[in-house]
Amino acid sequence: MLSKNQIRFIRSLGQKKERKSSGCFLAEGNKLVEDTLPFFTCELLAATPEWLSAHPQIKATEVVCASQVEIDRASLLKNPQQVIAVYRIPEYTFPEYTPVRQLVLALDTVQDPGNLGTIVRLADWFGIEHILCSPDTADLYNPKTVQATMGALARIKVHYLDLPDYLCGLKNVPVYGTFLYGTDLYKSGLSANGIIIMGNEGNGISPRTEQFVDRRLRIPNYPPGRHTSESLNVAVATAIVCAEFRRR
Amino acid sequence: MLSKNQIRFIRSLGQKKERKSSGCFLAEGNKLVEDTLPFFTCELLAATPEWLSAHPQIKATEVVCASQVEIDRASLLKNPQQVIAVYRIPEYTFPEYTPVRQLVLALDTVQDPGNLGTIVRLADWFGIEHILCSPDTADLYNPKTVQATMGALARIKVHYLDLPDYLCGLKNVPVYGTFLYGTDLYKSGLSANGIIIMGNEGNGISPRTEQFVDRRLRIPNYPPGRHTSESLNVAVATAIVCAEFRRR
Repeated sequence: MLSKNQIRFIRSLGQKKERKSSGCFLAEGNKLVEDTLPFFTCELLAATPEWLSAHPQIKATEVVCASQVEIDRASLLKNPQQVIAVYRIPEYTFPEYTPVRQLVLALDTVQDPGNLGTIVRLADWFGIEHILCSPDTADLYNPKTVQATMGALARIKVHYLDLPDYLCGLKNVPVYGTFLYGTDLYKSGLSANGIIIMGNEGNGISPRTEQFVDRRLRIPNYPPGRHTSESLNVAVATAIVCAEFRRR
Repeated sequence: MLSKNQIRFIRSLGQKKERKSSGCFLAEGNKLVEDTLPFFTCELLAATPEWLSAHPQIKATEVVCASQVEIDRASLLKNPQQVIAVYRIPEYTFPEYTPVRQLVLALDTVQDPGNLGTIVRLADWFGIEHILCSPDTADLYNPKTVQATMGALARIKVHYLDLPDYLCGLKNVPVYGTFLYGTDLYKSGLSANGIIIMGNEGNGISPRTEQFVDRRLRIPNYPPGRHTSESLNVAVATAIVCAEFRRR
């Protein structure tokens, strides 16, 4: 049985403040929990008797057999499923010279949790292991972000840091940025390493960060010069850029 | 002043049933309304005195000067802005042989309103004028979809129809579909016309529709064969495919 305190604790993890003080975050839903359980320390797992009997070898600090009504009460989803996991937030280090050897994504104030989750998922697809985020980018452990990663947050390392500070110390690493005015992505030289910066949904890359961009890319619209939408959704733009880096 | 009945009417447009019976939909927010107002018949426009004095030449059947409190009450947004527009749902015809001459997108049960809106926005970017949707695809006039299009719904024509029925009658038109198993997108022949089918978020393209696909495409992950996310978000996949068609 899930106690009232446990339900309150689970629900509190919808708030960043509570995630920070507890060091925990939430993953919900049968597929998401099944996919991520092997990769995180699970502090609390609440599931229906049916789910538990189908998964006899669960490793968690505390396993609670709960009724569907209790799960529904604890859940932050519109359509609660049969299992909720509380994971410990992992700690990663970011080796400063990673972009010398591989492609790294950097997000400058990407504010929508769903966009961040979708970007983590596509980074996983395109073999990008590390994502740097400005401190005001959405929180990776926001439940909406966690859901949108579809489990990819178990494989991708996301680091929050001051982007201009970090970029300032880097040497001999190409720094790409996407802009409405830049060189056609398909006519630009693209390297197999470096940093690709994606900007805020409304305002793009901030001036403080922009000064470190040495290769300005533009995703061409079609047909060229036609009046269309002013920009693309940031996850969509990230996908098109990453796909092109990997196609080369 | 916005009457209680008007507030109730505006809020009711969050529901598909009410949109259907009234033939109206909602657009909210300063930028979205400014971008779309010239393209639709506006039945009701509610705005603060400040917004109205900044936009003196508004064309609408009824213009209501409303207080911010009234706008906040009528709004379906988390962060209401200064203007709400009620538009008449336009009627389009789809010339059956459009895909003989141009690229057409077809969505087979894409259920998330945000995904649909993002796809409409990127279709606009890539010069795709018509989108076909299976009847169980999200509603274009769902307020979340409208917001996610960022105004592109004023330029793109979206048609709901039975996809297999339509595809069955088509001749000499390439029909592309994306699958986890298919020919590498970058090694496939791509035409400047035809239909590109994108499937449901969880289940992909339905068997009834799949039988009409004659060119199966796969977006390659990186590095090839690595264990990554099982799939990409449908809007992200659509973007990558459309970008490649247009790059050619």
